[in-house]
Amino acid sequence: MMRQAGRYLPEYREVRQKVSFMELCRSADLATEVSLQPFRRFDPDGVIFFSDILVPVAAMGARVEFGDGGPELPEPVRTSAAIEKLHRFDPASEVPFTGEILSRLKREVGGRAAVLGFCGAPWTLASYLVEGGASRSFAALKTMMGREPGTLRRLLDLLADVASDVLSYQLASGADAVQLFDTWAGELAAEDYREWALPAVARAIAGIRRAQAPVVLYVNGCGHLIEAMAESGADVLSIDWRVPLSDARRRAPGRGLQGNLDPGLLLGEPEEVARRTGAMLEETGGQGHVVNLGHGVLPGSRLECVEAFFDAARRPVRAAALPVTA
Amino acid sequence: MMRQAGRYLPEYREVRQKVSFMELCRSADLATEVSLQPFRRFDPDGVIFFSDILVPVAAMGARVEFGDGGPELPEPVRTSAAIEKLHRFDPASEVPFTGEILSRLKREVGGRAAVLGFCGAPWTLASYLVEGGASRSFAALKTMMGREPGTLRRLLDLLADVASDVLSYQLASGADAVQLFDTWAGELAAEDYREWALPAVARAIAGIRRAQAPVVLYVNGCGHLIEAMAESGADVLSIDWRVPLSDARRRAPGRGLQGNLDPGLLLGEPEEVARRTGAMLEETGGQGHVVNLGHGVLPGSRLECVEAFFDAARRPVRAAALPVTA
Repeated sequence: MMRQAGRYLPEYREVRQKVSFMELCRSADLATEVSLQPFRRFDPDGVIFFSDILVPVAAMGARVEFGDGGPELPEPVRTSAAIEKLHRFDPASEVPFTGEILSRLKREVGGRAAVLGFCGAPWTLASYLVEGGASRSFAALKTMMGREPGTLRRLLDLLADVASDVLSYQLASGADAVQLFDTWAGELAAEDYREWALPAVARAIAGIRRAQAPVVLYVNGCGHLIEAMAESGADVLSIDWRVPLSDARRRAPGRGLQGNLDPGLLLGEPEEVARRTGAMLEETGGQGHVVNLGHGVLPGSRLECVEAFFDAARRPVRAAALPVTA
Repeated sequence: MMRQAGRYLPEYREVRQKVSFMELCRSADLATEVSLQPFRRFDPDGVIFFSDILVPVAAMGARVEFGDGGPELPEPVRTSAAIEKLHRFDPASEVPFTGEILSRLKREVGGRAAVLGFCGAPWTLASYLVEGGASRSFAALKTMMGREPGTLRRLLDLLADVASDVLSYQLASGADAVQLFDTWAGELAAEDYREWALPAVARAIAGIRRAQAPVVLYVNGCGHLIEAMAESGADVLSIDWRVPLSDARRRAPGRGLQGNLDPGLLLGEPEEVARRTGAMLEETGGQGHVVNLGHGVLPGSRLECVEAFFDAARRPVRAAALPVTA
């Protein structure tokens, strides 16, 4: 479940009362503990290591602050000179706690659940860096795209290489699979996605030292991008709740799918969660399908709804309506 | 052009320095003046009256404040009791300035350009009321959807009737066509859109006293909703920049289309704006197509880019690739 460890869990909120968000990310003890909280409670097939997609951005030399209103980067990166100050880094030296968390998780759950790593995709990390935080219009990024394309290209290349390094380190440390979050790439028309976000994420994926470990690519608002995502090199496409899984299967033959329950349903009634999770599984027959939400769990999600989601996901399903390969 | 009058124009910013946003909306003199500013500068085919979709919400009895960070409703509507305090109203008594602006615009540009009215669609107005402002997750609204469906249904019905009244008054006052903005309905999976947002907007459209005046329905992030939008009763579907027009035409035969250039392109270079506007027109052959942006103009848009957009929209086009009716 995306954002599986988090504020909807009372045991997580208890830990968070004592430390800041960044302290939690950097403490191997506490981050391992909160990563395991949902595993103990719901017995999922996967354990996601607790971290944030901006941890590598901070390690590149950017100032990142986590406030109550989401992350802020008080010195937005909008010029060549600002990009020059960012640097590729060795994860084992700069973010050793991420490797430590993953190797501990591997020891704790290895064999019973997959250990999952992740990283922000270049386009999404560039959004934060250029906008200085979350954005609705992406005006600064689109200005750079239109007027300083070479500068943006250089930033995306750098972020792609950082993502490759980070994910390679996560896999070497114990992750069984990794996911790239391109949360904001759904903002782009398909033509612009192919020009900007796709080459960058494809470069990141191509650079991962991964043997056979699967790579998952998530894009929020990806209904118009399925065919393009299938060209990224990712093994599994993680799609948001607005794209029917049957539609995605037709458009991305041979790719695994992940998703895609509306996380907003977990604020409602368990019966409806069970019904919708079952309907989702009937669309794929559970084959080539990693059952998940279509976006992260929301704070305020009801524990009985999360329970209903995992219960419904474990029920046997009928044969797939559409084959995995065309 | 959606949000045609606004902060990207120096002459608008000059007016706004002197008055607050709400004062501008309520002053027939000033609102007429700023509505005409883009008409004088770019000679478009349509003049949109200056107002805000929350003007009717304030007239229903809700507290609405316009700050720099967008509108805020400090008393969110989340209970039956809170909904009881809201009321349907007579636009001629409560928002007479909207009628006055439209009748003046009709006198000023009638015959040379269409005068356009608008209103928020029920789902989007409910989002603001329930969330207390703009939202990313719509957690409060989805909680109400899941746990208090009858309450939400009552709120949507009330908002639909208000929208009908408001748009009927705008047409009676001089508007030639009206648009419903369902900006946030693209958040919903198709199943939920059909259950919640669509019946409410269809009720609003059915209730408009309009003779033959066309009704336009805009939904941001509507790629998965085109077929459902075509069942709303709207004559024209206004689509965001991520849906190819040719795709929308196939999926909504017999409906006019409006859109859909990415407004972010207006931050870039005029040559690219001209190229992309031309490509958009080639998709429809300009037939049954109201050339527009896929969302509102962004502050910071370059005047030379806006100029390039209008110029390209006026160029003759080849025949349509796909017929308007199937």
